[in-house]
Amino acid sequence: MIETATLWWDKGTQSIRYIDQTLLPEKYAIVECRSIGRLATAIKRLEIRGAPALGVAGAFGIALAARVCEKNDINAFFGDVQQDAEILLATRPTAINLGWGIARVLSKIAHVQDINSIRRIALAEAEAIASEDTACCHMIGEHGAALLPDTCTVLTHCNAGSLACSSWGTALGVIRSAVNRGKQVNVIACETRPLLQGSRLTAWELIRDGIDVTVITDSSAAHMMRTGTIDAVVVGADRITRDAVFNKIGTYMHAVCARYHNIPFYVAAPLSTFDTQKSERDVIIEERGREEVTTMGCRVYVPDAAVVKNYAFDATPMNLVTAIITEQGVLHPPITIDSILSFKSTK
Amino acid sequence: MIETATLWWDKGTQSIRYIDQTLLPEKYAIVECRSIGRLATAIKRLEIRGAPALGVAGAFGIALAARVCEKNDINAFFGDVQQDAEILLATRPTAINLGWGIARVLSKIAHVQDINSIRRIALAEAEAIASEDTACCHMIGEHGAALLPDTCTVLTHCNAGSLACSSWGTALGVIRSAVNRGKQVNVIACETRPLLQGSRLTAWELIRDGIDVTVITDSSAAHMMRTGTIDAVVVGADRITRDAVFNKIGTYMHAVCARYHNIPFYVAAPLSTFDTQKSERDVIIEERGREEVTTMGCRVYVPDAAVVKNYAFDATPMNLVTAIITEQGVLHPPITIDSILSFKSTK
Repeated sequence: MIETATLWWDKGTQSIRYIDQTLLPEKYAIVECRSIGRLATAIKRLEIRGAPALGVAGAFGIALAARVCEKNDINAFFGDVQQDAEILLATRPTAINLGWGIARVLSKIAHVQDINSIRRIALAEAEAIASEDTACCHMIGEHGAALLPDTCTVLTHCNAGSLACSSWGTALGVIRSAVNRGKQVNVIACETRPLLQGSRLTAWELIRDGIDVTVITDSSAAHMMRTGTIDAVVVGADRITRDAVFNKIGTYMHAVCARYHNIPFYVAAPLSTFDTQKSERDVIIEERGREEVTTMGCRVYVPDAAVVKNYAFDATPMNLVTAIITEQGVLHPPITIDSILSFKSTK
Repeated sequence: MIETATLWWDKGTQSIRYIDQTLLPEKYAIVECRSIGRLATAIKRLEIRGAPALGVAGAFGIALAARVCEKNDINAFFGDVQQDAEILLATRPTAINLGWGIARVLSKIAHVQDINSIRRIALAEAEAIASEDTACCHMIGEHGAALLPDTCTVLTHCNAGSLACSSWGTALGVIRSAVNRGKQVNVIACETRPLLQGSRLTAWELIRDGIDVTVITDSSAAHMMRTGTIDAVVVGADRITRDAVFNKIGTYMHAVCARYHNIPFYVAAPLSTFDTQKSERDVIIEERGREEVTTMGCRVYVPDAAVVKNYAFDATPMNLVTAIITEQGVLHPPITIDSILSFKSTK
């Protein structure tokens, strides 16, 4: 399998480079990003997406902010960097990792007084976050692979793969690690409306790695569960509160249907995705523009006069989760605030 | 509300006319169809679709076959008509109404020996089927409207509206009749991947009638059920066997999620949709071409190397159905072969 990064720091040009995920699978294009404005646009437009990748993007974003700021006064310098951090933070409200990556780099530089040192430390911390993310995904993969049968068909939703992380992936990391162990894994990728991250990204990266993948419409999943095709569901997460898993819209539907058919429903996510301070009701579910639902390619499919609701995420309550696969190991039910915190503290 | 037909016989040109449903909502176009080959293409391409409308199309198809056949020998004439019937029958395997409409007209002309009489009788029977379908939908509407609360939000899937029938609709007939009674009904239309009959057709015809409609992606339904937005689910059916309801892929997912959230799940269908001779395992679920899933507008969203499964329908077992709304009244559980037959016999 090819272990490629989705987002990295280019030392030559001192800029962020990333794969533009809106163009796949038709076009594989690397974007060079030299400003916070461009990075914010990339995150809003989902050129960069996926919870762990957003953490890495936030971290490199602060490194970029420190790189491009031309102020010499340290207070003015921190003022600019803080403003850039807020621009990035405002791009997407639901995934926690973006804010986590930003905060981790900011805290590392908070008491540094020399601007060149700040730049060096911010970049080093961002690089560390990216490396740790890759290591996390491999550990998640190992823990999760043990849960899958030797021959199985696994349903996944959206893209929790190498494109959503620094590399390897969370849900797809579990699948990659299982395949590496010699297991026969067939993946059912739900296309994931409205933006089709399943058909565009998950199918693309699994094919690149030679893993069998079948694309279905999201609403076919329950039918395939009923007919006995699906052995397990594995998804990623954008934020895990003490009582619920927030992930791409449609995840909850799969969780309900998996429970109805007695199929295990696994969530694969690094501990940085956990937000134990909050419960479900504290989290805003991002609603995105109607054009994502109404328009595809060159055609409009919804009459102008119709209302459109475009929820980007949903919440799956803990009681529907069979296990959460983290880099520290597998959290089994009852998944409570105490069991989550005991894992976090071992980190 | 405007009561328009979706498909009718044009006396002037002696041909079938229909609204091309693949072009809505961008374009409202009437097609003139003068051959069985063109009609078969229209059904395969879903220019004409919806179980009751397919019954009417099959019936008018036989009238058209009799009209265009130039044989004078009565055996040769019936041979041609029978061949045309088989061409139409082969277009779509799951919906029962197509075969039912064809068989009804064929049996009416089976013992007629005069070719002009055959033509007249076939057309009269097809016209009767179309009129009865409209009457059926209004009766279904009245029976179903009584089941809905005075103020409610109803989720529907695909299009079981006037475009799917001769007019008025089955699932949307229930909603139209409820609105006619003064009930406040807000409709959630699932877009219905892959061909978007919900966004394109259901939203279009409800807006035309001034009924509030919100379009969502299919996988948002469970989230909206969980957050308390949905009071009832009402869908149509393509075939009802003694043990299951066959309808557009995604229907089963809604049924499972409705049960999980204690939301009533209603099926609205004329008795002609029932196939009491068969059980679920006897019915073939149509699988359609991959391009319906992979391609939209001018873009390709699935890598060529990925397998695609495109089920057109799924089966919902009777135990998940709260009630079936027919023109004879409402079938409540236990919905058994005996209860279905007692309804059919009163017809």
